[in-house]
Amino acid sequence: MNEHKSEFELIDWIRRHRRPPDQSNVITDIGDDMAVVQIGDEKLLITTDILLDGVHFELSQVSPVQVGYKAMACSLSDCAAMAALPFVAVVAVALPQDMTMDQARQLYDGLQRPAVKYNCPIVGGDTTSWNKPLAVNVTMLAKPGPKPPILRSGAQAGDVIMVTGRLGGSLHGKHLQFTPRVNEAQTLTQMAELHAMIDISDGLSSDLRHICRQSNVNAIIDADAIPLSDAAKNCSDPLTAALTDGEDFELLFCLSPDDAADLLRTWPGHSNLELSQIGQITSLDHEHRIMLRRPDGTTEPLTAKGWEHFCD
Amino acid sequence: MNEHKSEFELIDWIRRHRRPPDQSNVITDIGDDMAVVQIGDEKLLITTDILLDGVHFELSQVSPVQVGYKAMACSLSDCAAMAALPFVAVVAVALPQDMTMDQARQLYDGLQRPAVKYNCPIVGGDTTSWNKPLAVNVTMLAKPGPKPPILRSGAQAGDVIMVTGRLGGSLHGKHLQFTPRVNEAQTLTQMAELHAMIDISDGLSSDLRHICRQSNVNAIIDADAIPLSDAAKNCSDPLTAALTDGEDFELLFCLSPDDAADLLRTWPGHSNLELSQIGQITSLDHEHRIMLRRPDGTTEPLTAKGWEHFCD
Repeated sequence: MNEHKSEFELIDWIRRHRRPPDQSNVITDIGDDMAVVQIGDEKLLITTDILLDGVHFELSQVSPVQVGYKAMACSLSDCAAMAALPFVAVVAVALPQDMTMDQARQLYDGLQRPAVKYNCPIVGGDTTSWNKPLAVNVTMLAKPGPKPPILRSGAQAGDVIMVTGRLGGSLHGKHLQFTPRVNEAQTLTQMAELHAMIDISDGLSSDLRHICRQSNVNAIIDADAIPLSDAAKNCSDPLTAALTDGEDFELLFCLSPDDAADLLRTWPGHSNLELSQIGQITSLDHEHRIMLRRPDGTTEPLTAKGWEHFCD
Repeated sequence: MNEHKSEFELIDWIRRHRRPPDQSNVITDIGDDMAVVQIGDEKLLITTDILLDGVHFELSQVSPVQVGYKAMACSLSDCAAMAALPFVAVVAVALPQDMTMDQARQLYDGLQRPAVKYNCPIVGGDTTSWNKPLAVNVTMLAKPGPKPPILRSGAQAGDVIMVTGRLGGSLHGKHLQFTPRVNEAQTLTQMAELHAMIDISDGLSSDLRHICRQSNVNAIIDADAIPLSDAAKNCSDPLTAALTDGEDFELLFCLSPDDAADLLRTWPGHSNLELSQIGQITSLDHEHRIMLRRPDGTTEPLTAKGWEHFCD
């Protein structure tokens, strides 16, 4: 009997069945972009991500350097989502047996480049070979920036919802060469009081749902306010691409309307990266729901069709 | 051209080509059981290990609970090797598509049991499904105990070499149900000043070689002093099994002859676990070498045939 398996369902089960840590030094555990723990007087953030050939990349179509880059940049994007500063990383790889030593070195080069750029040295790892496809796991530690970490759980009814950049069609190239928004997250938290933030990995509709569930709120987003990437515009349904494709690795965040207005006015002088106001956080009624408002004023519930990492 | 690939060779290449961290807060990086970093006034240790179906376990022959247990216990054993106290863990899994939800929960239960026992809560993770075999990655953070972390690099000529427990034949069962020597490492460091320590994962001859290379020393071990497990005694060549099988997850450590004598005299009152004195650290001559002394007094160089995780 192969019971239908879902990543989110399993994570929910784990959250319900985990032993709540009896240590007061675990501040945030399962359910955000990074866990937060207390070490002495300091807070430390932790994220782990496993990238798999055939799921997150196709090794037959990309270079080992690109795979390494993506693996490290995904973890850096998690740091951005918490407005945290990358600190150190460890990397574990399962290398296919037919991968050459030169390809393994290229993979490491790809991991190293963004690690160096964002001052996050690789301090350890594990290397194993098997007669199966490539798997790359990056675990990253980060420290809070000048402002405390931004969680998924702080969105409030009335908040404005914003995103960086343009969304959709990432699979056509961006997912291998995106810029993790580490620096932009620092600028944003210096310019405004962000209530909640996440990076768009599963897809806008899915990741906004994570914020709504963690914050116990609902949301409404405006179809014509969603910034479409050029790749999305080339899709048969650009809006659906922007809502559900995932792996945009842009920031999705919530803040007060006043802060949002200030930010939209002053932001262009700080960055070439586009900011868009795409909707509002609303009060939770009887169920968690995200509404999509069409240009004609009609609304419809948005189903969470974001890219779940189970490929079933 | 498929250049011959070796785990140790690749790690050597990475060590030579890594950018030395310019951060003074990286104390020990690649080349020990755990990296050591400085966070504020505290030291933090980090290890990551990926366990693969067909390499570290055979999912067709063991339960998901056993796989989870082994994955967590391997990281706990790394903590033991540094005499560190487990703090928190994160887990990333690549689940085969035909794995049921119930099996996934069993895997998590197996991870959870030793984590709870050693007070090391799982604070985060990543779950992905693919149509390939199971891969489980555990990254563990630890804190120093009352004594500083014991590195691989502190062995001195004249030191006595000791091991806990009995060695060899782990594949016949122990590799799935070993006790990580976390508590024993604490007792040992309280009773004696250990100069260097490692856990036996690759195999005694291979892991002693790691200590010798990191400490820039040589070693001689006595064939008839090596404690043979019952499983090793059932092998066609028990001594070779004990020297090279690996995955014993016992502690191999070096200390002064006086401390070793004190320890052997007082230890039995503290633990049921056997301690054995198996050899001596010697000065480095022209090359790194471990000699094996036979009962008749003859010696021969010991080749590093430890279980390298490349299965080539």
